[in-house]
Amino acid sequence: MTVTAITGATLLDGTGGAPIDDAVVLIDGQRIRATGRAADVPVPEGAAVVDARGRHVIPGLMDANAHLCNSLPDTLIRYHGRLEELIEEASQVALRAGVTTVFDTWGPLRQLLAVRDRIARGEVPGCRSFVGGNIIGLDGPLSPDFFPPGELLAPSTREAVNADWVHGVGADLLWLTPDGVRERVRAYAETSGADFLKYASNSHMGAAIAFSAPAQRAIVEEAHRLGMTAQAHTISVEGLRMEIEAGADILQHGNITGNVPIPDETIASIVDGGIAVAALVPTTRYLDWIARHGHEWHRTVGFTATTDLNNRRLIEAGARLLLTVDGFVGPPKALEHPYFGMAGAVAYSQHLGEGHFLWLEAVIERGMDPMEALLSGTRYVAEAYGQAADIGTIEPGKRADLVVLGGDPLADVQNYRRIEAVMKDGAFADLDALPVHPVVTAEEE
Amino acid sequence: MTVTAITGATLLDGTGGAPIDDAVVLIDGQRIRATGRAADVPVPEGAAVVDARGRHVIPGLMDANAHLCNSLPDTLIRYHGRLEELIEEASQVALRAGVTTVFDTWGPLRQLLAVRDRIARGEVPGCRSFVGGNIIGLDGPLSPDFFPPGELLAPSTREAVNADWVHGVGADLLWLTPDGVRERVRAYAETSGADFLKYASNSHMGAAIAFSAPAQRAIVEEAHRLGMTAQAHTISVEGLRMEIEAGADILQHGNITGNVPIPDETIASIVDGGIAVAALVPTTRYLDWIARHGHEWHRTVGFTATTDLNNRRLIEAGARLLLTVDGFVGPPKALEHPYFGMAGAVAYSQHLGEGHFLWLEAVIERGMDPMEALLSGTRYVAEAYGQAADIGTIEPGKRADLVVLGGDPLADVQNYRRIEAVMKDGAFADLDALPVHPVVTAEEE
Amino acid sequence: MTVTAITGATLLDGTGGAPIDDAVVLIDGQRIRATGRAADVPVPEGAAVVDARGRHVIPGLMDANAHLCNSLPDTLIRYHGRLEELIEEASQVALRAGVTTVFDTWGPLRQLLAVRDRIARGEVPGCRSFVGGNIIGLDGPLSPDFFPPGELLAPSTREAVNADWVHGVGADLLWLTPDGVRERVRAYAETSGADFLKYASNSHMGAAIAFSAPAQRAIVEEAHRLGMTAQAHTISVEGLRMEIEAGADILQHGNITGNVPIPDETIASIVDGGIAVAALVPTTRYLDWIARHGHEWHRTVGFTATTDLNNRRLIEAGARLLLTVDGFVGPPKALEHPYFGMAGAVAYSQHLGEGHFLWLEAVIERGMDPMEALLSGTRYVAEAYGQAADIGTIEPGKRADLVVLGGDPLADVQNYRRIEAVMKDGAFADLDALPVHPVVTAEEE
Amino acid sequence: MTVTAITGATLLDGTGGAPIDDAVVLIDGQRIRATGRAADVPVPEGAAVVDARGRHVIPGLMDANAHLCNSLPDTLIRYHGRLEELIEEASQVALRAGVTTVFDTWGPLRQLLAVRDRIARGEVPGCRSFVGGNIIGLDGPLSPDFFPPGELLAPSTREAVNADWVHGVGADLLWLTPDGVRERVRAYAETSGADFLKYASNSHMGAAIAFSAPAQRAIVEEAHRLGMTAQAHTISVEGLRMEIEAGADILQHGNITGNVPIPDETIASIVDGGIAVAALVPTTRYLDWIARHGHEWHRTVGFTATTDLNNRRLIEAGARLLLTVDGFVGPPKALEHPYFGMAGAVAYSQHLGEGHFLWLEAVIERGMDPMEALLSGTRYVAEAYGQAADIGTIEPGKRADLVVLGGDPLADVQNYRRIEAVMKDGAFADLDALPVHPVVTAEEE
Repeated sequence: MTVTAITGATLLDGTGGAPIDDAVVLIDGQRIRATGRAADVPVPEGAAVVDARGRHVIPGLMDANAHLCNSLPDTLIRYHGRLEELIEEASQVALRAGVTTVFDTWGPLRQLLAVRDRIARGEVPGCRSFVGGNIIGLDGPLSPDFFPPGELLAPSTREAVNADWVHGVGADLLWLTPDGVRERVRAYAETSGADFLKYASNSHMGAAIAFSAPAQRAIVEEAHRLGMTAQAHTISVEGLRMEIEAGADILQHGNITGNVPIPDETIASIVDGGIAVAALVPTTRYLDWIARHGHEWHRTVGFTATTDLNNRRLIEAGARLLLTVDGFVGPPKALEHPYFGMAGAVAYSQHLGEGHFLWLEAVIERGMDPMEALLSGTRYVAEAYGQAADIGTIEPGKRADLVVLGGDPLADVQNYRRIEAVMKDGAFADLDALPVHPVVTAEEE
Repeated sequence: MTVTAITGATLLDGTGGAPIDDAVVLIDGQRIRATGRAADVPVPEGAAVVDARGRHVIPGLMDANAHLCNSLPDTLIRYHGRLEELIEEASQVALRAGVTTVFDTWGPLRQLLAVRDRIARGEVPGCRSFVGGNIIGLDGPLSPDFFPPGELLAPSTREAVNADWVHGVGADLLWLTPDGVRERVRAYAETSGADFLKYASNSHMGAAIAFSAPAQRAIVEEAHRLGMTAQAHTISVEGLRMEIEAGADILQHGNITGNVPIPDETIASIVDGGIAVAALVPTTRYLDWIARHGHEWHRTVGFTATTDLNNRRLIEAGARLLLTVDGFVGPPKALEHPYFGMAGAVAYSQHLGEGHFLWLEAVIERGMDPMEALLSGTRYVAEAYGQAADIGTIEPGKRADLVVLGGDPLADVQNYRRIEAVMKDGAFADLDALPVHPVVTAEEE
Repeated sequence: MTVTAITGATLLDGTGGAPIDDAVVLIDGQRIRATGRAADVPVPEGAAVVDARGRHVIPGLMDANAHLCNSLPDTLIRYHGRLEELIEEASQVALRAGVTTVFDTWGPLRQLLAVRDRIARGEVPGCRSFVGGNIIGLDGPLSPDFFPPGELLAPSTREAVNADWVHGVGADLLWLTPDGVRERVRAYAETSGADFLKYASNSHMGAAIAFSAPAQRAIVEEAHRLGMTAQAHTISVEGLRMEIEAGADILQHGNITGNVPIPDETIASIVDGGIAVAALVPTTRYLDWIARHGHEWHRTVGFTATTDLNNRRLIEAGARLLLTVDGFVGPPKALEHPYFGMAGAVAYSQHLGEGHFLWLEAVIERGMDPMEALLSGTRYVAEAYGQAADIGTIEPGKRADLVVLGGDPLADVQNYRRIEAVMKDGAFADLDALPVHPVVTAEEE
Repeated sequence: MTVTAITGATLLDGTGGAPIDDAVVLIDGQRIRATGRAADVPVPEGAAVVDARGRHVIPGLMDANAHLCNSLPDTLIRYHGRLEELIEEASQVALRAGVTTVFDTWGPLRQLLAVRDRIARGEVPGCRSFVGGNIIGLDGPLSPDFFPPGELLAPSTREAVNADWVHGVGADLLWLTPDGVRERVRAYAETSGADFLKYASNSHMGAAIAFSAPAQRAIVEEAHRLGMTAQAHTISVEGLRMEIEAGADILQHGNITGNVPIPDETIASIVDGGIAVAALVPTTRYLDWIARHGHEWHRTVGFTATTDLNNRRLIEAGARLLLTVDGFVGPPKALEHPYFGMAGAVAYSQHLGEGHFLWLEAVIERGMDPMEALLSGTRYVAEAYGQAADIGTIEPGKRADLVVLGGDPLADVQNYRRIEAVMKDGAFADLDALPVHPVVTAEEE
């Protein structure tokens, strides 16, 4: 197997250490062999040398909350039975934008796993993914938890679509005892193939609590028993507190609490516990847009002034934030759906392939140190998800996931957009060829 | 003040003691002076003697869960500003049917208190009532928690109707921390004039949890701090368990848990803790009707085979059940509302003035001892609500609330319907004159 | 009976003749005895003299399309059984604003007649009214034709409300043959007590045709057979054309045709036939507001650029327009109803007691001659409805309906608002006492 | 080209003449060369002989109202862009069931034409079809005229689906003058490629009239100007009468008039004018089912006792009925859609591939002569649609479309189901291979 050497660039290796100028990064197969100053790391004979002078090299970016399969009713009905095509395409959209790893926190499990594995085997290009499957305690997309279908659809259609999500851990779990919940979650955790568990601490769109404290503990215990990380969906201060008490590893959009600011004690428990907050961080520009045009839920719960205050306080308190887009790839006009208000809105913040740039801009805008921002989008995500042995930094032994940028992202956050090359598992992606199967796009045309 | 003597009847005094044949009950003003066999209790000279030979005398019946103000959208809009008329009428309907005391567990607080006091002062006839006001954590009748009004009504109408319910302890409390909840509940408990507190452990129609465990404890503590009883609305096994852990005094329809039977431990904690269960106990006849014609919620959550199983197990385990109709007085055709399925349905079980007869029939049908059934509808209710010093039995010093029946209710439960006289606070009601203000009925005609 | 003499004012008698300065108007009982210059009309001895120097006297204003009973779902449910209170109040609101006669073109027939007669007998103050009752072919307010009630209301409520409107000539007539329609309309015309007939040429909110041409002719013939005028609801060019062909006397909002301008031939047939057009004429200010904030129907059908174009062309062609507010008195916040978009919107154009001032302003704004505008709001309305023998002008023998204005309305249309006195049937209204039964207002307070 | 001889069968040639026993049918290429008794029609040497002794041969059946593309919202979203697959499959389902020709009266025009032509060219098997395209005056399937999509779908999805139907002759035509309608219809008739025109005389589900009489005449004239037949959708007696007056050639489900029987004069005008009635004729069994379980529209408008009465009267009066299924091929569970009530319901009457058997059974049940029933499903359809020169009977020169049955359909209507062979255009279909592209079926499996 050939060795590749990337030479001449400034290396931001994701460890948080000082930038290394005129660096050499040696890649051997799928992994990093060595990194360091050119003086310290000789390029082996026969190595393929990539001259990256004037560039910056960073670890492949990581998104702590992605949805590779979009969940718009139209799309789900249309692509039922072909969801893998959507997932492949989205995986490629992400990769092209420098995101080499995503954690898919809600989607059709079987199809996501199939694409995850196909990409891992190198059969198709795309970002690496880890898959959570269903949000335990919620029903599928065409249900009251998401898009109530009314009487427009035949029940069989609704059920067929939802079945790809639910896998035995849907809303009926809310009726059970903690033991009953544990039993169902155990079966799911052991047999589904999911990489991590996500459950509903709050109901999807409201402040009600989905699972009682002992039920939440049961879920987290089942995850940990199998060595999986656990996280919860929360949107209220109590949902958030309960999730922390239950022992969750990652607080999914833990910064969203409607109009009630996160209590100081909760922030302290986050910081002291070193618990990662996968935070939705809107730019000021987007907050303004939402205030004027946003759907009611976005205006009053999701992207409020309190959301922004929470983000600023979490950053100031030194909480460990994770880059989180909570985004998907929608068909061109999908964002006209009433829920989104109008085209363009979501593109500002929750669009896969775009939202991570905005996230990095927004955290900088809110006072985060640029190096911390970089780690929030790389090493911290890997660590929070227990994947730090393999990914998240450019260090010997790690998987060779990296992005070559045309400018210094620490100097100007817009430089994250100046992507010149993306390597995953030691191979450069053919950016011009991505997405190679533009399913959605092609059909819309 | 004149003394009244009821003589010759068989007395079932509500203490659970053996029936007293040829009894004398002496009433002095609003209270019982003495009871006993004729041989032991001389009738004072000048007493007004009521010859009740061949009759049975029981304490006035008590309903642990009534709604004196019906909450149908049509009625609320129509009678907005005049709700007291509805409440008075319902109070009279109850009294006429032998129910001398009701505990109103959800309704327009200010209006309920006004009628409560007007009746207490003797200005108008009607049953005695104790008032809970809003269910803490839920919004008013014209809200997603009950009847979502869609776009049919002007927002001002919706808000005006709901305002009579919410009084600062509505659904927005779910967003708060336990301390925030405590503060709002304290203000309500101290200033509203409510007689007891009821809160949402479950959301109204679904299995989600409304308040976290510490928030539930805070609510119960605030009630107890002021000497009030606390109860919660539950419909799931976890909602029920949390309510018990929070220290609630009365489990409101604690027998309803969807399709998941109450766990043995929970039944044990109810029995061992002597916690009262205000149970909805449908007759077999009504269960059959619901299974065939009922609204989805009734069929799948409220009146399931599990509901029946829970009732049988609670009775067998010796839990203390309270007579609970959860009923209201509806306009003649109101029960055609889609939620009720068809006219007549609710009359079988949740109709104020009728439902208590059916409840007594149903518990007998499920194996409860007839004497226990009588206590469930009298003394137990008074004790659970902390009112046993005044009401619930026919004993010296208690308020003189009693019903004269034409037959022995222990021998045949249908004899509860053979009401010959109803006394409340020492005065016989003029049954023929009730309801004296047939507001609803009159207008429908 | 006393004679009243109004002296010194400039008289605009509604005939279209030149203004008469220093006029005398003699009123004898309920009728005008004489009018003319002071020199020509001696004031009889003993007459009550009203010195109106500096004022202008005009005939009482007339609204060709009013709804004395507002039809908001909230109001109808709330005031069911008490609609006459609403109607009385609205009649007084109109009178106070100088409108001495309204033609009620859709409302609860029985209650409207009762108030009409009560006012006519002088038992309560209020404007004179003529009543059409139901729009033949449409169902009541709580129906798909107006406000579909969904599942919020019990069927009995919906039916009770609608029954006050339908009176046997509802939407089921659309299924019948022309003969079948005729039979039903005949029964209604002969027995209902309605003063004139209105039917649906178009469906209420859409461009479909309600009745076929022979059915429309049958309806108009039945009206004419009994000496009643006939009019139709139209909103499309074909609905309008068919109504004209059927022989209708008044084209109700005949100026509204969505986005398709009225064809030249239709305008010609209107002008040549001398058919009155009860036109909704919005001000430019209102059109702008609608374009930005209006409910979809208002923006795309009711108050479009085409509506404005039609109005300008009708005026230019010399069509006989009638002052038409199509308005009602709503409770203070009723206009927040989703259909109206926001408070204030309707106040600009369709508010009873206000809209006629705006109408007069709008026709002037669109180039109508000021004298023609006055006639459009007086004599023309009377003539179109066949009431010219009694009302519409200040001429000997006519009913003494007049308004004393503080300024010349021909010089400045805003002077219509400067109402100093209103006489109806020879009696001055006590303006300060109107409305004397502020039902709605009072209850809202 | 080879000659085929079908020998030995009893021939029912569709002319209405007496059955010919021991017949010979000679087919030369795509057409019939000769028919007659064996004695009269010698089998040419070299002919391929098909021994059909004991069988009956009838013309290929014809359906005067089919929908080769099903219009369920789920299906349309799912197969958007692939509708031709559905249409091909349905064409094959029809052919397999002995229906060699269908007239598609509402569907996606472009796709229907493509499949029509592909089948005509022999590239794929399937029934012959004639295509109407949109119902002029109605909007597409995801519109208020059919299935209002509410807020579930992005507007772009709704618009994309509807665009395949509307083609410039949608509901906006109702706003236009007759001339305006004519202009739009002319453009559609001249350029769309449709084989015939269908328009809305009634609105889709209600009794309102879609187009005024002159607009209806304009539409029919435009059809006739181009040599096309015209038909209208009607569901009321007036809609039906207007369609006849407009000159329509075929009355589409002219037997449906809600609960108002067709007037005698209208029946007379149908019979005297020889106008074909494409009638939905339910069996008694189906009528019973609808009365108990049917969707409201089916119960009160579509399949009422009046519908049945109309059918019986039309048959008795000698009206020319056309076999009309108004059916489609649905996915297995599609009939669970709320509109259909439950699976099985539609299968009784409106299921393509099945409904024609039920239609023939139903007309016999209603007293139609068996020979007349056969002509209603063959020659009469061809004549009504102006295609009698080519199809409808087994006569020399006609296209060789025929069905070989295992029993005499005149003796027992169930024998129509005993299909042994189906020939279209001179070629026997490979019945076992149909449907060859089971798109829907396959995907559901």
